[in-house]
Amino acid sequence: MLLLVLELVGVTAFAASGALAAVRARLDIFGVCVLGATTALGGGVLRDLLLGITPPTALTDGRYLAAALVTSLLVFRFNPGVARLRRSVLVLDAAGMGLFATGGATTALAAGGSALAACIIGMTTAIGGGVLRDVLLREIPTVLRMEIYALAALAGSVVVVAGTAAGLRPGVASVFGALLATGLRGVALRRGWNAPLAR
Amino acid sequence: MLLLVLELVGVTAFAASGALAAVRARLDIFGVCVLGATTALGGGVLRDLLLGITPPTALTDGRYLAAALVTSLLVFRFNPGVARLRRSVLVLDAAGMGLFATGGATTALAAGGSALAACIIGMTTAIGGGVLRDVLLREIPTVLRMEIYALAALAGSVVVVAGTAAGLRPGVASVFGALLATGLRGVALRRGWNAPLAR
Amino acid sequence: MLLLVLELVGVTAFAASGALAAVRARLDIFGVCVLGATTALGGGVLRDLLLGITPPTALTDGRYLAAALVTSLLVFRFNPGVARLRRSVLVLDAAGMGLFATGGATTALAAGGSALAACIIGMTTAIGGGVLRDVLLREIPTVLRMEIYALAALAGSVVVVAGTAAGLRPGVASVFGALLATGLRGVALRRGWNAPLAR
Repeated sequence: MLLLVLELVGVTAFAASGALAAVRARLDIFGVCVLGATTALGGGVLRDLLLGITPPTALTDGRYLAAALVTSLLVFRFNPGVARLRRSVLVLDAAGMGLFATGGATTALAAGGSALAACIIGMTTAIGGGVLRDVLLREIPTVLRMEIYALAALAGSVVVVAGTAAGLRPGVASVFGALLATGLRGVALRRGWNAPLAR
Repeated sequence: MLLLVLELVGVTAFAASGALAAVRARLDIFGVCVLGATTALGGGVLRDLLLGITPPTALTDGRYLAAALVTSLLVFRFNPGVARLRRSVLVLDAAGMGLFATGGATTALAAGGSALAACIIGMTTAIGGGVLRDVLLREIPTVLRMEIYALAALAGSVVVVAGTAAGLRPGVASVFGALLATGLRGVALRRGWNAPLAR
Repeated sequence: MLLLVLELVGVTAFAASGALAAVRARLDIFGVCVLGATTALGGGVLRDLLLGITPPTALTDGRYLAAALVTSLLVFRFNPGVARLRRSVLVLDAAGMGLFATGGATTALAAGGSALAACIIGMTTAIGGGVLRDVLLREIPTVLRMEIYALAALAGSVVVVAGTAAGLRPGVASVFGALLATGLRGVALRRGWNAPLAR
Protein backbone atom coordinates (compact mmCIF):
# COMPACT_ATOMS: atom_id res chain seq x y z
CA MET A 1 0.00 0.00 0.00
CA LEU A 2 2.77 2.41 0.97
CA LEU A 3 4.68 1.30 -2.13
CA LEU A 4 1.70 2.07 -4.36
CA VAL A 5 1.36 5.55 -2.86
CA LEU A 6 5.07 6.19 -3.39
CA GLU A 7 4.89 4.95 -6.97
CA LEU A 8 1.94 7.19 -7.68
CA VAL A 9 3.92 10.15 -6.28
CA GLY A 10 6.64 9.29 -8.78
CA VAL A 11 4.14 8.99 -11.62
CA THR A 12 2.66 12.36 -10.68
CA ALA A 13 6.06 14.07 -10.63
CA PHE A 14 7.10 12.59 -13.96
CA ALA A 15 3.75 13.47 -15.54
CA ALA A 16 4.09 17.06 -14.30
CA SER A 17 7.56 17.40 -15.82
CA GLY A 18 6.33 16.00 -19.14
CA ALA A 19 3.21 18.14 -19.21
CA LEU A 20 5.13 21.31 -18.30
CA ALA A 21 7.59 20.67 -21.13
CA ALA A 22 4.71 20.00 -23.54
CA VAL A 23 2.96 23.23 -22.60
CA ARG A 24 6.17 25.15 -23.22
CA ALA A 25 6.47 23.47 -26.64
CA ARG A 26 2.93 24.68 -27.53
CA LEU A 27 1.35 21.23 -27.78
CA ASP A 28 -2.43 21.14 -27.64
CA ILE A 29 -4.36 19.72 -24.66
CA PHE A 30 -4.31 16.21 -26.06
CA GLY A 31 -0.59 16.37 -26.84
CA VAL A 32 0.03 17.57 -23.26
CA CYS A 33 -1.81 14.52 -21.92
CA VAL A 34 0.04 12.13 -24.24
CA LEU A 35 3.38 13.64 -23.31
CA GLY A 36 2.60 13.64 -19.59
CA ALA A 37 1.54 9.99 -19.75
CA THR A 38 4.54 9.00 -21.89
CA THR A 39 6.97 10.64 -19.49
CA ALA A 40 5.28 9.06 -16.47
CA LEU A 41 4.76 5.57 -17.87
CA GLY A 42 7.39 5.27 -20.64
CA GLY A 43 10.13 3.97 -18.36
CA GLY A 44 7.89 1.26 -16.97
CA VAL A 45 6.73 0.26 -20.44
CA LEU A 46 10.35 -0.06 -21.62
CA ARG A 47 11.11 -2.16 -18.51
CA ASP A 48 8.22 -4.51 -19.25
CA LEU A 49 9.14 -4.83 -22.95
CA LEU A 50 12.74 -5.69 -22.02
CA LEU A 51 11.45 -8.32 -19.58
CA GLY A 52 8.77 -9.74 -21.88
CA ILE A 53 5.89 -8.63 -19.64
CA THR A 54 3.08 -7.94 -22.11
CA PRO A 55 0.87 -6.02 -22.18
CA PRO A 56 2.88 -3.68 -19.92
CA THR A 57 1.56 -3.12 -16.40
CA ALA A 58 1.02 0.58 -17.10
CA LEU A 59 -1.62 -0.39 -19.68
CA THR A 60 -3.43 -2.92 -17.52
CA ASP A 61 -3.52 -1.18 -14.12
CA GLY A 62 -5.52 1.99 -14.77
CA ARG A 63 -4.38 3.80 -11.61
CA TYR A 64 -1.03 4.80 -13.09
CA LEU A 65 -2.59 6.18 -16.27
CA ALA A 66 -5.29 7.98 -14.28
CA ALA A 67 -2.69 9.67 -12.07
CA ALA A 68 -0.69 10.74 -15.13
CA LEU A 69 -3.72 12.15 -16.95
CA VAL A 70 -5.14 14.04 -13.95
CA THR A 71 -1.73 15.59 -13.35
CA SER A 72 -1.34 16.56 -17.00
CA LEU A 73 -4.76 18.21 -17.08
CA LEU A 74 -4.04 20.14 -13.88
CA VAL A 75 -0.77 21.40 -15.34
CA PHE A 76 -2.59 22.41 -18.53
CA ARG A 77 -5.36 24.20 -16.65
CA PHE A 78 -3.22 26.09 -14.15
CA ASN A 79 -0.33 26.63 -16.46
CA PRO A 80 1.24 29.99 -15.76
CA GLY A 81 0.86 29.37 -12.03
CA VAL A 82 2.09 25.80 -11.96
CA ALA A 83 5.29 26.72 -13.78
CA ARG A 84 6.33 28.47 -10.56
CA LEU A 85 6.28 25.05 -8.88
CA ARG A 86 9.12 23.88 -11.11
CA ARG A 87 11.46 23.58 -8.13
CA SER A 88 9.00 21.36 -6.24
CA VAL A 89 8.56 19.24 -9.35
CA LEU A 90 12.33 18.70 -9.45
CA VAL A 91 12.29 17.44 -5.85
CA LEU A 92 9.36 15.10 -6.49
CA ASP A 93 11.05 14.00 -9.72
CA ALA A 94 14.16 13.01 -7.76
CA ALA A 95 11.97 10.91 -5.46
CA GLY A 96 10.22 9.33 -8.44
CA MET A 97 13.52 8.58 -10.11
CA GLY A 98 14.78 6.71 -7.07
CA LEU A 99 11.56 4.72 -6.73
CA PHE A 100 11.45 3.87 -10.44
CA ALA A 101 15.09 2.74 -10.45
CA THR A 102 14.70 0.42 -7.47
CA GLY A 103 11.26 -0.75 -8.57
CA GLY A 104 12.65 -1.55 -12.02
CA ALA A 105 15.59 -3.48 -10.60
CA THR A 106 13.33 -5.41 -8.22
CA THR A 107 10.91 -6.30 -11.03
CA ALA A 108 13.80 -7.47 -13.23
CA LEU A 109 15.19 -9.72 -10.48
CA ALA A 110 11.72 -11.11 -9.77
CA ALA A 111 11.30 -11.89 -13.50
CA GLY A 112 14.50 -13.93 -13.42
CA GLY A 113 16.83 -11.33 -14.93
CA SER A 114 20.56 -11.49 -14.18
CA ALA A 115 22.24 -9.02 -11.85
CA LEU A 116 23.60 -7.08 -14.83
CA ALA A 117 20.21 -6.98 -16.55
CA ALA A 118 18.58 -5.78 -13.31
CA CYS A 119 21.04 -2.87 -12.99
CA ILE A 120 20.54 -1.74 -16.59
CA ILE A 121 16.78 -2.23 -16.54
CA GLY A 122 16.48 -0.34 -13.24
CA MET A 123 18.34 2.62 -14.72
CA THR A 124 16.29 2.40 -17.92
CA THR A 125 13.04 2.43 -15.93
CA ALA A 126 14.14 5.62 -14.18
CA ILE A 127 15.48 7.57 -17.16
CA GLY A 128 13.35 6.11 -19.99
CA GLY A 129 10.37 8.43 -19.53
CA GLY A 130 12.53 11.56 -19.47
CA VAL A 131 14.46 10.43 -22.54
CA LEU A 132 11.21 9.83 -24.47
CA ARG A 133 9.90 13.24 -23.35
CA ASP A 134 12.99 15.02 -24.64
CA VAL A 135 13.18 13.04 -27.90
CA LEU A 136 9.51 13.79 -28.66
CA LEU A 137 10.15 17.47 -28.01
CA ARG A 138 13.27 17.43 -30.18
CA GLU A 139 15.80 18.00 -27.41
CA ILE A 140 18.96 16.15 -26.51
CA PRO A 141 17.95 14.20 -23.37
CA THR A 142 18.65 16.35 -20.31
CA VAL A 143 19.36 13.30 -18.19
CA LEU A 144 22.41 12.55 -20.35
CA ARG A 145 23.75 16.07 -20.26
CA MET A 146 23.73 17.38 -16.76
CA GLU A 147 23.32 17.17 -13.05
CA ILE A 148 24.02 13.52 -12.28
CA TYR A 149 20.76 11.82 -13.05
CA ALA A 150 21.39 8.54 -14.85
CA LEU A 151 24.33 7.87 -12.53
CA ALA A 152 22.11 8.26 -9.45
CA ALA A 153 19.55 5.91 -10.99
CA LEU A 154 22.24 3.34 -11.69
CA ALA A 155 23.55 3.65 -8.13
CA GLY A 156 20.09 2.94 -6.73
CA SER A 157 19.70 -0.12 -8.96
CA VAL A 158 23.11 -1.46 -7.96
CA VAL A 159 22.18 -1.17 -4.27
CA VAL A 160 19.06 -3.27 -4.86
CA VAL A 161 20.98 -5.96 -6.76
CA ALA A 162 23.90 -6.06 -4.35
CA GLY A 163 21.66 -5.89 -1.29
CA THR A 164 19.47 -8.73 -2.50
CA ALA A 165 22.53 -10.81 -3.34
CA ALA A 166 23.81 -10.15 0.19
CA GLY A 167 20.60 -11.54 1.64
CA LEU A 168 18.57 -8.41 2.34
CA ARG A 169 14.84 -8.63 1.69
CA PRO A 170 13.96 -6.93 -1.63
CA GLY A 171 11.83 -4.33 0.14
CA VAL A 172 14.64 -3.34 2.49
CA ALA A 173 17.22 -3.20 -0.31
CA SER A 174 14.81 -1.02 -2.29
CA VAL A 175 14.47 1.47 0.53
CA PHE A 176 18.23 1.84 0.77
CA GLY A 177 18.57 2.08 -3.02
CA ALA A 178 15.85 4.68 -3.39
CA LEU A 179 17.27 6.78 -0.56
CA LEU A 180 20.73 6.70 -2.12
CA ALA A 181 19.52 7.54 -5.65
CA THR A 182 17.21 10.32 -4.52
CA GLY A 183 19.74 11.71 -2.05
CA LEU A 184 22.53 11.72 -4.61
CA ARG A 185 20.31 13.49 -7.12
CA GLY A 186 19.13 15.98 -4.49
CA VAL A 187 22.64 16.90 -3.44
CA ALA A 188 23.71 17.22 -7.07
CA LEU A 189 20.79 19.58 -7.72
CA ARG A 190 21.43 21.71 -4.64
CA ARG A 191 25.18 22.00 -5.17
CA GLY A 192 25.01 22.24 -8.95
CA TRP A 193 27.16 19.12 -9.29
CA ASN A 194 27.78 17.99 -12.84
CA ALA A 195 29.65 15.01 -14.18
CA PRO A 196 32.81 15.99 -16.09
CA LEU A 197 32.82 16.82 -19.79
CA ALA A 198 35.52 15.75 -22.24
CA ARG A 199 38.11 18.29 -23.30
CA MET B 1 -10.95 -9.74 -47.85
CA LEU B 2 -12.56 -6.30 -47.67
CA LEU B 3 -10.69 -5.71 -44.42
CA LEU B 4 -7.37 -6.56 -46.07
CA VAL B 5 -8.07 -4.14 -48.91
CA LEU B 6 -8.96 -1.40 -46.44
CA GLU B 7 -5.85 -2.07 -44.41
CA LEU B 8 -3.69 -1.89 -47.51
CA VAL B 9 -5.30 1.45 -48.37
CA GLY B 10 -4.27 2.67 -44.94
CA VAL B 11 -0.73 1.32 -45.38
CA THR B 12 -0.50 3.06 -48.76
CA ALA B 13 -1.64 6.38 -47.36
CA PHE B 14 0.74 6.22 -44.40
CA ALA B 15 3.63 5.19 -46.65
CA ALA B 16 2.91 8.11 -48.97
CA SER B 17 2.95 10.58 -46.08
CA GLY B 18 6.24 9.16 -44.80
CA ALA B 19 7.86 9.09 -48.23
CA LEU B 20 6.75 12.63 -49.03
CA ALA B 21 8.22 13.90 -45.78
CA ALA B 22 11.46 11.99 -46.47
CA VAL B 23 11.78 13.45 -49.96
CA ARG B 24 11.33 16.95 -48.52
CA ALA B 25 14.06 16.19 -45.93
CA ARG B 26 16.45 15.23 -48.80
CA LEU B 27 16.81 11.56 -47.83
CA ASP B 28 18.16 9.27 -50.53
CA ILE B 29 16.03 6.64 -52.29
CA PHE B 30 16.77 4.03 -49.66
CA GLY B 31 16.02 6.42 -46.80
CA VAL B 32 12.72 7.29 -48.50
CA CYS B 33 11.79 3.58 -48.60
CA VAL B 34 12.80 3.03 -44.96
CA LEU B 35 10.84 6.06 -43.84
CA GLY B 36 7.78 5.16 -45.91
CA ALA B 37 7.82 1.63 -44.50
CA THR B 38 8.41 2.83 -40.93
CA THR B 39 5.51 5.26 -41.12
CA ALA B 40 3.22 2.64 -42.63
CA LEU B 41 4.17 -0.31 -40.44
CA GLY B 42 5.57 1.31 -37.28
CA GLY B 43 2.24 1.59 -35.50
CA GLY B 44 1.47 -2.08 -36.10
CA VAL B 45 4.93 -3.12 -34.94
CA LEU B 46 4.49 -1.14 -31.71
CA ARG B 47 1.07 -2.76 -31.23
CA ASP B 48 2.55 -6.24 -31.63
CA LEU B 49 5.48 -5.51 -29.28
CA LEU B 50 3.08 -4.23 -26.61
CA LEU B 51 0.99 -7.40 -27.00
CA GLY B 52 3.94 -9.81 -27.14
CA ILE B 53 3.21 -10.88 -30.75
CA THR B 54 6.68 -11.64 -32.14
CA PRO B 55 7.89 -11.37 -34.77
CA PRO B 56 5.41 -8.58 -35.61
CA THR B 57 2.82 -9.34 -38.30
CA ALA B 58 4.21 -6.59 -40.53
CA LEU B 59 7.47 -8.58 -40.80
CA THR B 60 5.85 -11.93 -41.52
CA ASP B 61 3.07 -11.00 -43.96
CA GLY B 62 4.93 -9.53 -46.94
CA ARG B 63 1.90 -7.80 -48.46
CA TYR B 64 2.04 -4.87 -46.05
CA LEU B 65 5.73 -4.27 -46.66
CA ALA B 66 5.29 -4.64 -50.42
CA ALA B 67 2.50 -2.04 -50.45
CA ALA B 68 4.63 0.36 -48.39
CA LEU B 69 7.69 -0.04 -50.62
CA VAL B 70 5.84 0.30 -53.93
CA THR B 71 4.15 3.45 -52.64
CA SER B 72 7.45 4.91 -51.44
CA LEU B 73 9.12 4.26 -54.79
CA LEU B 74 6.23 5.84 -56.70
CA VAL B 75 6.42 8.93 -54.49
CA PHE B 76 10.18 9.09 -55.06
CA ARG B 77 9.84 8.69 -58.82
CA PHE B 78 7.01 11.13 -59.42
CA ASN B 79 8.01 13.55 -56.73
CA PRO B 80 7.27 17.07 -57.81
CA GLY B 81 3.95 15.88 -59.25
CA VAL B 82 2.87 13.71 -56.35
CA ALA B 83 3.34 16.53 -53.86
CA ARG B 84 0.28 18.12 -55.45
CA LEU B 85 -1.71 15.13 -54.22
CA ARG B 86 -1.05 16.14 -50.62
CA ARG B 87 -4.72 16.88 -49.99
CA SER B 88 -5.74 13.41 -51.23
CA VAL B 89 -3.07 11.84 -49.07
CA LEU B 90 -4.56 13.61 -46.03
CA VAL B 91 -7.97 12.11 -46.79
CA LEU B 92 -6.57 8.61 -47.27
CA ASP B 93 -4.49 9.10 -44.14
CA ALA B 94 -7.64 9.88 -42.15
CA ALA B 95 -9.16 6.63 -43.42
CA GLY B 96 -5.99 4.70 -42.57
CA MET B 97 -5.91 6.22 -39.10
CA GLY B 98 -9.45 5.09 -38.36
CA LEU B 99 -8.75 1.57 -39.64
CA PHE B 100 -5.48 1.29 -37.73
CA ALA B 101 -7.07 2.49 -34.48
CA THR B 102 -9.97 0.04 -34.63
CA GLY B 103 -7.79 -2.80 -35.96
CA GLY B 104 -5.31 -2.20 -33.12
CA ALA B 105 -8.07 -2.20 -30.49
CA THR B 106 -9.60 -5.38 -31.95
CA THR B 107 -6.24 -7.15 -32.01
CA ALA B 108 -5.57 -6.13 -28.41
CA LEU B 109 -8.94 -7.47 -27.23
CA ALA B 110 -8.41 -10.71 -29.18
CA ALA B 111 -5.00 -11.10 -27.52
CA GLY B 112 -6.63 -10.90 -24.11
CA GLY B 113 -5.81 -7.26 -23.34
CA SER B 114 -7.99 -5.32 -20.90
CA ALA B 115 -10.39 -2.62 -22.07
CA LEU B 116 -7.95 0.08 -21.02
CA ALA B 117 -5.04 -1.60 -22.80
CA ALA B 118 -7.13 -1.97 -25.95
CA CYS B 119 -7.97 1.75 -26.01
CA ILE B 120 -4.35 2.81 -25.55
CA ILE B 121 -2.97 0.22 -27.97
CA GLY B 122 -5.56 1.15 -30.60
CA MET B 123 -4.52 4.80 -30.38
CA THR B 124 -0.84 3.83 -30.41
CA THR B 125 -1.34 1.73 -33.56
CA ALA B 126 -2.89 4.71 -35.31
CA ILE B 127 -0.45 7.42 -34.28
CA GLY B 128 2.75 5.38 -33.80
CA GLY B 129 3.87 5.45 -37.42
CA GLY B 130 3.42 9.20 -37.71
CA VAL B 131 5.25 9.81 -34.44
CA LEU B 132 8.21 7.68 -35.61
CA ARG B 133 8.22 9.52 -38.96
CA ASP B 134 8.43 12.90 -37.26
CA VAL B 135 11.01 11.83 -34.68
CA LEU B 136 13.27 10.39 -37.41
CA LEU B 137 12.97 13.66 -39.33
CA ARG B 138 13.66 15.71 -36.22
CA GLU B 139 10.25 17.29 -35.87
CA ILE B 140 7.90 17.52 -32.92
CA PRO B 141 5.19 14.98 -33.79
CA THR B 142 2.45 16.73 -35.78
CA VAL B 143 -0.20 14.43 -34.38
CA LEU B 144 0.41 15.87 -30.90
CA ARG B 145 0.33 19.46 -32.02
CA MET B 146 -2.64 20.10 -34.22
CA GLU B 147 -5.87 19.21 -35.90
CA ILE B 148 -7.37 16.59 -33.61
CA TYR B 149 -5.64 13.40 -34.64
CA ALA B 150 -4.75 11.35 -31.58
CA LEU B 151 -8.11 12.24 -30.03
CA ALA B 152 -9.96 10.88 -33.08
CA ALA B 153 -7.89 7.69 -32.93
CA LEU B 154 -8.71 7.28 -29.25
CA ALA B 155 -12.41 7.85 -29.94
CA GLY B 156 -12.40 5.08 -32.55
CA SER B 157 -10.69 2.67 -30.16
CA VAL B 158 -13.14 3.46 -27.38
CA VAL B 159 -16.07 2.69 -29.69
CA VAL B 160 -14.59 -0.73 -30.46
CA VAL B 161 -14.05 -1.53 -26.79
CA ALA B 162 -17.41 -0.21 -25.62
CA GLY B 163 -19.26 -1.77 -28.55
CA THR B 164 -17.71 -5.18 -27.98
CA ALA B 165 -18.48 -4.96 -24.27
CA ALA B 166 -22.09 -4.13 -25.19
CA GLY B 167 -22.34 -7.30 -27.23
CA LEU B 168 -21.68 -6.05 -30.76
CA ARG B 169 -19.67 -8.32 -33.03
CA PRO B 170 -16.06 -7.05 -33.29
CA GLY B 171 -16.43 -6.42 -37.04
CA VAL B 172 -19.52 -4.26 -36.54
CA ALA B 173 -17.98 -2.32 -33.66
CA SER B 174 -14.90 -1.72 -35.82
CA VAL B 175 -16.96 -0.26 -38.65
CA PHE B 176 -18.61 2.21 -36.26
CA GLY B 177 -15.29 3.04 -34.63
CA ALA B 178 -13.50 3.61 -37.92
CA LEU B 179 -16.31 5.78 -39.26
CA LEU B 180 -16.29 7.93 -36.12
CA ALA B 181 -12.49 8.32 -36.04
CA THR B 182 -12.18 9.09 -39.75
CA GLY B 183 -15.20 11.36 -39.74
CA LEU B 184 -14.00 13.32 -36.73
CA ARG B 185 -10.59 13.74 -38.31
CA GLY B 186 -12.13 14.74 -41.64
CA VAL B 187 -14.36 17.40 -40.09
CA ALA B 188 -11.41 18.72 -38.05
CA LEU B 189 -9.34 19.00 -41.23
CA ARG B 190 -12.08 20.71 -43.23
CA ARG B 191 -13.04 23.18 -40.53
CA GLY B 192 -9.50 23.73 -39.25
CA TRP B 193 -10.50 22.53 -35.80
CA ASN B 194 -7.70 22.41 -33.28
CA ALA B 195 -7.66 21.27 -29.71
CA PRO B 196 -7.06 24.13 -27.25
CA LEU B 197 -3.58 25.27 -26.21
CA ALA B 198 -2.61 26.27 -22.69
CA ARG B 199 -2.29 29.95 -21.88
CA MET C 1 35.30 -18.07 -30.57
CA LEU C 2 36.30 -16.25 -33.76
CA LEU C 3 32.69 -15.08 -34.09
CA LEU C 4 32.73 -13.65 -30.57
CA VAL C 5 35.95 -11.76 -31.31
CA LEU C 6 34.49 -10.36 -34.53
CA GLU C 7 31.29 -9.34 -32.75
CA LEU C 8 33.28 -7.56 -30.06
CA VAL C 9 35.18 -5.70 -32.79
CA GLY C 10 31.84 -4.56 -34.15
CA VAL C 11 30.64 -3.53 -30.69
CA THR C 12 33.85 -1.57 -30.15
CA ALA C 13 33.55 0.26 -33.45
CA PHE C 14 29.90 1.15 -32.87
CA ALA C 15 30.62 2.27 -29.29
CA ALA C 16 33.45 4.50 -30.55
CA SER C 17 31.18 6.16 -33.11
CA GLY C 18 28.51 6.77 -30.48
CA ALA C 19 30.95 8.07 -27.89
CA LEU C 20 32.66 10.38 -30.40
CA ALA C 21 29.31 11.84 -31.40
CA ALA C 22 28.36 12.27 -27.73
CA VAL C 23 31.60 14.07 -26.91
CA ARG C 24 30.99 16.44 -29.83
CA ALA C 25 27.46 17.10 -28.51
CA ARG C 26 28.94 18.07 -25.10
CA LEU C 27 27.40 15.21 -23.13
CA ASP C 28 28.97 14.50 -19.75
CA ILE C 29 31.00 11.35 -19.03
CA PHE C 30 27.95 9.36 -18.08
CA GLY C 31 26.03 10.47 -21.14
CA VAL C 32 29.01 9.47 -23.30
CA CYS C 33 28.90 5.97 -21.80
CA VAL C 34 25.14 5.66 -22.24
CA LEU C 35 25.35 6.82 -25.84
CA GLY C 36 28.30 4.58 -26.64
CA ALA C 37 26.50 1.58 -25.16
CA THR C 38 23.21 2.45 -26.87
CA THR C 39 24.90 2.74 -30.27
CA ALA C 40 26.79 -0.51 -29.77
CA LEU C 41 23.97 -2.59 -28.28
CA GLY C 42 20.79 -0.86 -29.50
CA GLY C 43 20.55 -2.80 -32.76
CA GLY C 44 20.86 -6.12 -30.94
CA VAL C 45 18.27 -5.09 -28.37
CA LEU C 46 15.80 -4.15 -31.13
CA ARG C 47 16.50 -7.50 -32.83
CA ASP C 48 15.75 -9.39 -29.62
CA LEU C 49 12.58 -7.40 -28.90
CA LEU C 50 11.30 -8.08 -32.43
CA LEU C 51 12.01 -11.80 -31.94
CA GLY C 52 10.61 -12.02 -28.40
CA ILE C 53 14.01 -12.84 -26.84
CA THR C 54 13.77 -11.28 -23.37
CA PRO C 55 15.73 -10.03 -21.59
CA PRO C 56 17.87 -9.14 -24.62
CA THR C 57 21.23 -10.91 -24.92
CA ALA C 58 23.09 -7.62 -24.62
CA LEU C 59 21.75 -7.29 -21.06
CA THR C 60 22.55 -10.84 -19.98
CA ASP C 61 25.99 -11.41 -21.49
CA GLY C 62 28.17 -8.79 -19.81
CA ARG C 63 31.01 -8.96 -22.33
CA TYR C 64 29.22 -6.82 -24.88
CA LEU C 65 28.39 -4.12 -22.36
CA ALA C 66 31.92 -4.21 -20.95
CA ALA C 67 33.44 -3.73 -24.41
CA ALA C 68 31.09 -0.83 -25.10
CA LEU C 69 31.82 0.91 -21.79
CA VAL C 70 35.60 0.51 -21.97
CA THR C 71 35.58 1.92 -25.49
CA SER C 72 33.40 4.85 -24.47
CA LEU C 73 35.67 5.72 -21.56
CA LEU C 74 38.78 5.54 -23.74
CA VAL C 75 37.17 7.87 -26.27
CA PHE C 76 36.22 10.25 -23.46
CA ARG C 77 39.68 10.20 -21.93
CA PHE C 78 41.73 10.59 -25.10
CA ASN C 79 39.27 12.79 -26.88
CA PRO C 80 41.09 15.32 -28.99
CA GLY C 81 43.52 12.61 -30.07
CA VAL C 82 41.00 9.90 -30.75
CA ALA C 83 38.97 12.15 -33.04
CA ARG C 84 41.86 11.84 -35.52
CA LEU C 85 41.08 8.12 -35.72
CA ARG C 86 37.70 8.88 -37.28
CA ARG C 87 38.69 7.28 -40.57
CA SER C 88 39.72 4.04 -38.82
CA VAL C 89 36.47 4.05 -36.89
CA LEU C 90 34.59 4.24 -40.19
CA VAL C 91 36.40 1.15 -41.46
CA LEU C 92 35.76 -0.82 -38.26
CA ASP C 93 32.18 0.42 -38.33
CA ALA C 94 31.73 -1.04 -41.83
CA ALA C 95 33.01 -4.38 -40.53
CA GLY C 96 30.69 -4.19 -37.53
CA MET C 97 27.74 -3.34 -39.76
CA GLY C 98 28.32 -6.42 -41.91
CA LEU C 99 28.66 -8.68 -38.86
CA PHE C 100 25.59 -7.25 -37.16
CA ALA C 101 23.47 -7.61 -40.31
CA THR C 102 24.40 -11.25 -40.89
CA GLY C 103 24.29 -12.07 -37.18
CA GLY C 104 20.84 -10.51 -36.93
CA ALA C 105 19.54 -12.44 -39.93
CA THR C 106 21.01 -15.70 -38.61
CA THR C 107 19.46 -15.16 -35.17
CA ALA C 108 16.09 -14.40 -36.75
CA LEU C 109 16.16 -17.59 -38.85
CA ALA C 110 17.24 -19.64 -35.82
CA ALA C 111 14.33 -18.18 -33.84
CA GLY C 112 11.90 -19.38 -36.50
CA GLY C 113 11.43 -16.07 -38.33
CA SER C 114 10.37 -16.08 -41.98
CA ALA C 115 12.80 -15.17 -44.78
CA LEU C 116 11.27 -11.71 -45.03
CA ALA C 117 11.45 -11.14 -41.27
CA ALA C 118 15.10 -12.27 -41.25
CA CYS C 119 16.04 -9.75 -43.97
CA ILE C 120 14.34 -6.86 -42.19
CA ILE C 121 15.59 -7.84 -38.75
CA GLY C 122 19.14 -8.27 -40.05
CA MET C 123 19.08 -4.76 -41.50
CA THR C 124 17.50 -3.40 -38.31
CA THR C 125 20.23 -5.00 -36.18
CA ALA C 126 22.88 -3.28 -38.28
CA ILE C 127 21.36 0.20 -38.52
CA GLY C 128 19.37 0.34 -35.27
CA GLY C 129 22.21 1.50 -33.05
CA GLY C 130 23.21 4.30 -35.41
CA VAL C 131 19.61 5.44 -35.76
CA LEU C 132 19.19 5.59 -31.96
CA ARG C 133 22.49 7.50 -31.67
CA ASP C 134 21.37 10.13 -34.15
CA VAL C 135 17.83 10.44 -32.74
CA LEU C 136 19.19 10.93 -29.21
CA LEU C 137 21.55 13.63 -30.52
CA ARG C 138 18.74 15.29 -32.44
CA GLU C 139 20.02 14.55 -35.93
CA ILE C 140 18.33 13.00 -38.94
CA PRO C 141 19.82 9.48 -39.06
CA THR C 142 22.96 9.55 -41.22
CA VAL C 143 22.41 5.98 -42.34
CA LEU C 144 19.23 7.08 -44.13
CA ARG C 145 20.79 10.06 -45.82
CA MET C 146 24.06 9.11 -47.39
CA GLU C 147 26.75 6.73 -48.50
CA ILE C 148 24.89 3.46 -49.00
CA TYR C 149 24.66 2.05 -45.50
CA ALA C 150 21.23 0.54 -44.93
CA LEU C 151 21.30 -0.89 -48.46
CA ALA C 152 24.60 -2.69 -47.76
CA ALA C 153 23.15 -4.08 -44.51
CA LEU C 154 20.09 -5.34 -46.35
CA ALA C 155 22.27 -6.95 -49.04
CA GLY C 156 24.24 -8.83 -46.37
CA SER C 157 21.02 -10.07 -44.73
CA VAL C 158 19.60 -11.21 -48.07
CA VAL C 159 22.75 -13.23 -48.76
CA VAL C 160 22.35 -15.04 -45.43
CA VAL C 161 18.68 -15.82 -46.07
CA ALA C 162 19.17 -16.86 -49.70
CA GLY C 163 22.33 -18.83 -48.94
CA THR C 164 20.69 -20.73 -46.09
CA ALA C 165 17.67 -21.47 -48.27
CA ALA C 166 20.05 -22.77 -50.95
CA GLY C 167 21.54 -25.22 -48.48
CA LEU C 168 24.66 -23.40 -47.28
CA ARG C 169 25.56 -23.77 -43.63
CA PRO C 170 24.55 -20.63 -41.68
CA GLY C 171 28.18 -19.88 -40.79
CA VAL C 172 29.28 -19.99 -44.43
CA ALA C 173 26.36 -17.89 -45.62
CA SER C 174 27.17 -15.36 -42.90
CA VAL C 175 30.77 -15.05 -44.06
CA PHE C 176 29.64 -14.30 -47.61
CA GLY C 177 26.97 -11.89 -46.42
CA ALA C 178 29.31 -10.00 -44.10
CA LEU C 179 31.97 -9.72 -46.82
CA LEU C 180 29.43 -8.37 -49.30
CA ALA C 181 27.91 -5.86 -46.86
CA THR C 182 31.25 -4.62 -45.57
CA GLY C 183 32.80 -4.54 -49.05
CA LEU C 184 29.88 -2.62 -50.52
CA ARG C 185 30.00 -0.10 -47.71
CA GLY C 186 33.79 0.22 -48.02
CA VAL C 187 33.66 0.88 -51.75
CA ALA C 188 30.83 3.39 -51.26
CA LEU C 189 32.91 5.22 -48.64
CA ARG C 190 36.08 5.26 -50.76
CA ARG C 191 34.38 6.36 -53.97
CA GLY C 192 31.90 8.71 -52.29
CA TRP C 193 28.98 6.73 -53.72
CA ASN C 194 25.58 7.94 -52.69
CA ALA C 195 22.14 6.60 -53.47
CA PRO C 196 20.11 8.96 -55.68
CA LEU C 197 17.96 11.77 -54.31
CA ALA C 198 14.53 12.70 -55.62
CA ARG C 199 14.20 15.75 -57.83
